[in-house]
Amino acid sequence: MKKSTTFITTIILVIFSLSGHSQDNDSITIRKIFNESLGKGKSYEWLRELTTKIGPRLSGSEGATKAVTWGKNLLESGGYDKVFLQDVMVPHWVRGKKEEGYILNGKQKTIVPLAALGGSISTPEKGITAEVIEVKTFQELRDLGKEKCQGKIIFFNRPMDPTKINTFEAYGQAGDQRRSGANEASKMGAVGVIIRSLSNTENDFPHTGSMQYATGVPLIPAAALSTNAATLLSKTLKENSSLKFYFRQSCESLPDAPSHNVVAEIKGSEKPEEIIVVGGHLDSWDLAQGAHDDGTGIVQSMEVLRIFKTLNIKPKHTLRVVLFMNEENGTKGGIKYADLAKANNEKHIFAMESDNGGFTPRGFGIQGGSAEILAKIKAFSVVLSPYGLNEIEKGSGGSDIGPLAPQGTVLLGFKPDPQRYFEYHHASNDRFETVNQRELEMGAASMASMIYLIDKNF
Amino acid sequence: MKKSTTFITTIILVIFSLSGHSQDNDSITIRKIFNESLGKGKSYEWLRELTTKIGPRLSGSEGATKAVTWGKNLLESGGYDKVFLQDVMVPHWVRGKKEEGYILNGKQKTIVPLAALGGSISTPEKGITAEVIEVKTFQELRDLGKEKCQGKIIFFNRPMDPTKINTFEAYGQAGDQRRSGANEASKMGAVGVIIRSLSNTENDFPHTGSMQYATGVPLIPAAALSTNAATLLSKTLKENSSLKFYFRQSCESLPDAPSHNVVAEIKGSEKPEEIIVVGGHLDSWDLAQGAHDDGTGIVQSMEVLRIFKTLNIKPKHTLRVVLFMNEENGTKGGIKYADLAKANNEKHIFAMESDNGGFTPRGFGIQGGSAEILAKIKAFSVVLSPYGLNEIEKGSGGSDIGPLAPQGTVLLGFKPDPQRYFEYHHASNDRFETVNQRELEMGAASMASMIYLIDKNF
Repeated sequence: MKKSTTFITTIILVIFSLSGHSQDNDSITIRKIFNESLGKGKSYEWLRELTTKIGPRLSGSEGATKAVTWGKNLLESGGYDKVFLQDVMVPHWVRGKKEEGYILNGKQKTIVPLAALGGSISTPEKGITAEVIEVKTFQELRDLGKEKCQGKIIFFNRPMDPTKINTFEAYGQAGDQRRSGANEASKMGAVGVIIRSLSNTENDFPHTGSMQYATGVPLIPAAALSTNAATLLSKTLKENSSLKFYFRQSCESLPDAPSHNVVAEIKGSEKPEEIIVVGGHLDSWDLAQGAHDDGTGIVQSMEVLRIFKTLNIKPKHTLRVVLFMNEENGTKGGIKYADLAKANNEKHIFAMESDNGGFTPRGFGIQGGSAEILAKIKAFSVVLSPYGLNEIEKGSGGSDIGPLAPQGTVLLGFKPDPQRYFEYHHASNDRFETVNQRELEMGAASMASMIYLIDKNF
Repeated sequence: MKKSTTFITTIILVIFSLSGHSQDNDSITIRKIFNESLGKGKSYEWLRELTTKIGPRLSGSEGATKAVTWGKNLLESGGYDKVFLQDVMVPHWVRGKKEEGYILNGKQKTIVPLAALGGSISTPEKGITAEVIEVKTFQELRDLGKEKCQGKIIFFNRPMDPTKINTFEAYGQAGDQRRSGANEASKMGAVGVIIRSLSNTENDFPHTGSMQYATGVPLIPAAALSTNAATLLSKTLKENSSLKFYFRQSCESLPDAPSHNVVAEIKGSEKPEEIIVVGGHLDSWDLAQGAHDDGTGIVQSMEVLRIFKTLNIKPKHTLRVVLFMNEENGTKGGIKYADLAKANNEKHIFAMESDNGGFTPRGFGIQGGSAEILAKIKAFSVVLSPYGLNEIEKGSGGSDIGPLAPQGTVLLGFKPDPQRYFEYHHASNDRFETVNQRELEMGAASMASMIYLIDKNF
């Protein structure tokens, strides 16, 4: 019953917090926003450019540099009040030659798709060949003891839980294998780590992603196997526990490189000193076109500004789009943005991020802010639910805007439907053609509508 | 304010119509249903078989015959109380040789993708070459007058409205061009009809679909151009209004053919004489694998029965899955099913159809039934909304179950997210690989959960 009661309270709040007249006006404006995005939107063509003309754009790469120029030029052509770059030093990890890996079962050699994890060291040039220990958890690894793990390759094979409705929850629960697997394995004397890709799709694409080395443990190389390869390896290990696995990778971390966040703004008409940010991240993993991660968030954020300008909606607060650099392996852009905001005494009241893919909109997660603010935002569902935005609730904002939280900024994470995201996340199939134009445009319009309501009501 | 008040009424109804204890039990069962579908589901592998091993299965074709055998065998292996076929005579239209079409602009010949509409006659063997008149509406055509249209090809080029959030609404508004365009054009003396494909995606796939000839007007051939081709033709016409268009098709209607609905049932434990139906349609257009239309509905419906059986949920009412034949060009299977239900004095209390694609679930449309029934079903949202099922409201059931409506059956249309459907609908890109496993399985679980609640509460 509790849930229903809370629900009633919210609904009653809705009734008293928004007058009928204001609601009607809002409905009309939101309808115009959706018409603009769905009928004359630019986000899809921008995404085509970013993903197919520039393509992969890992921090420090030529692609990232091109993406900064592309974003700046595009925003400059938008006629906004200000467009500028923020300097930021970013990690510069390179994959080197394409990795190789195979299962050696007696004399049978089966080549498998794998990809070095971002931040990993290389193997020796001739690769690593060793027996494999399969585990599901760190605890299981520790229980095995050092003797059994010495000189071996540790294979973390705990799948994402398919029964979680929110796939991000399943991702969170499986993520330790990728982030810290190498450290845990190294402590046990292992010579290398391979993990099952963090994906809930059974196919042949390895999914990369960042890992960090802990201090005080020997560095060992780490790679992700495609889910099919992980299933095959596990099956083969059951038949022959002394099979060997080989992998070779030549990745390395170069010195940090200079890069940029790209920022554009429309100055507020009433409270220009109060800023509302909307953004995504411009960098992507090197394997992919970075369509859903996070090309879609970038073009949707730019589309928000374009829609405001085109429909002549003059925000009360200053509205800024930020194309953050380096979300994937460092979040240096997000950190730098927040540092500068603080140093410049800027007041960021709200920040919105789109970094969960360009899928059909479901709602927004709200992080921070008082119960009153939360209730006020939830009440917007009266005018947003006709667009499928039914899930407006407490949640997380996003990695890039996270560093603003200590400044009291209320964070909003755009929530598209989560079912398909981990089919593409960090893998080479994260391509332009997997993005549906209407879903992308619905998302851009949802974000613009929420920002319109926030700007008007706070 | 009206909407909010209705909403409160609904919520209050929820509180009083379901006891807390019952709700908890329901939540547990529904969680089990989703776990089964997402963790151990069969729908995806069944869909792979149906779409890639059998493939296209237009009524009267060999594919349709194979699909009937496949469905029957699969249901027989499920251990249900009864599996049987219902005989039904179906239209048998065949496309013949692949169509050809081109724009003749002076000496420049541009070949364009096009496909005969289902039910259309052929062109003469040498094809039709004629000038083109482009119109958006029937009224516009009539206003031109007979003289201008005589001997011409009429080109209906009214796009689906991209600003409609519900794409089915946009489809409905554009559908007259396909269904009746040939009749309207024929009345004006035209020799052929080409239409812009009913799709909101700009690409090179022509989308077929059914058309009917009216009595008393000369029959003229009708075809659909891909949206890109339609845009090109329109543009070229603006440069040269006297260009010519050529098309050739060799389709024909053969005598009606024998076919079948496939039915399986679990007998009800308390009210076996009251029947709840769940189904989709087994036939597809000949151009496509018929993945989203309607392979997904077929495998989801079969999965509902499998889940009940596997989880040992014993329905109070008799639960039937029906694989309907001939939804695409005749609905003869749906009509026959309802006729037999009436003739056999069967009492169908509810019927559910899945025929809007295998996309992420949004809710259900309810057609028929009293206000009380509607309120009771809407109240299920308390236990269904954690699964994204927020849209439980008045709506339409589906073509195959529609003929049951006059018998007082309450119809439920499963509503997946509608944004991507018309990218694939009736075109050759409606393929297995466009279906996401999780979205499909979420849909099957949503359907099973709704049927569980209906069976229990009515």
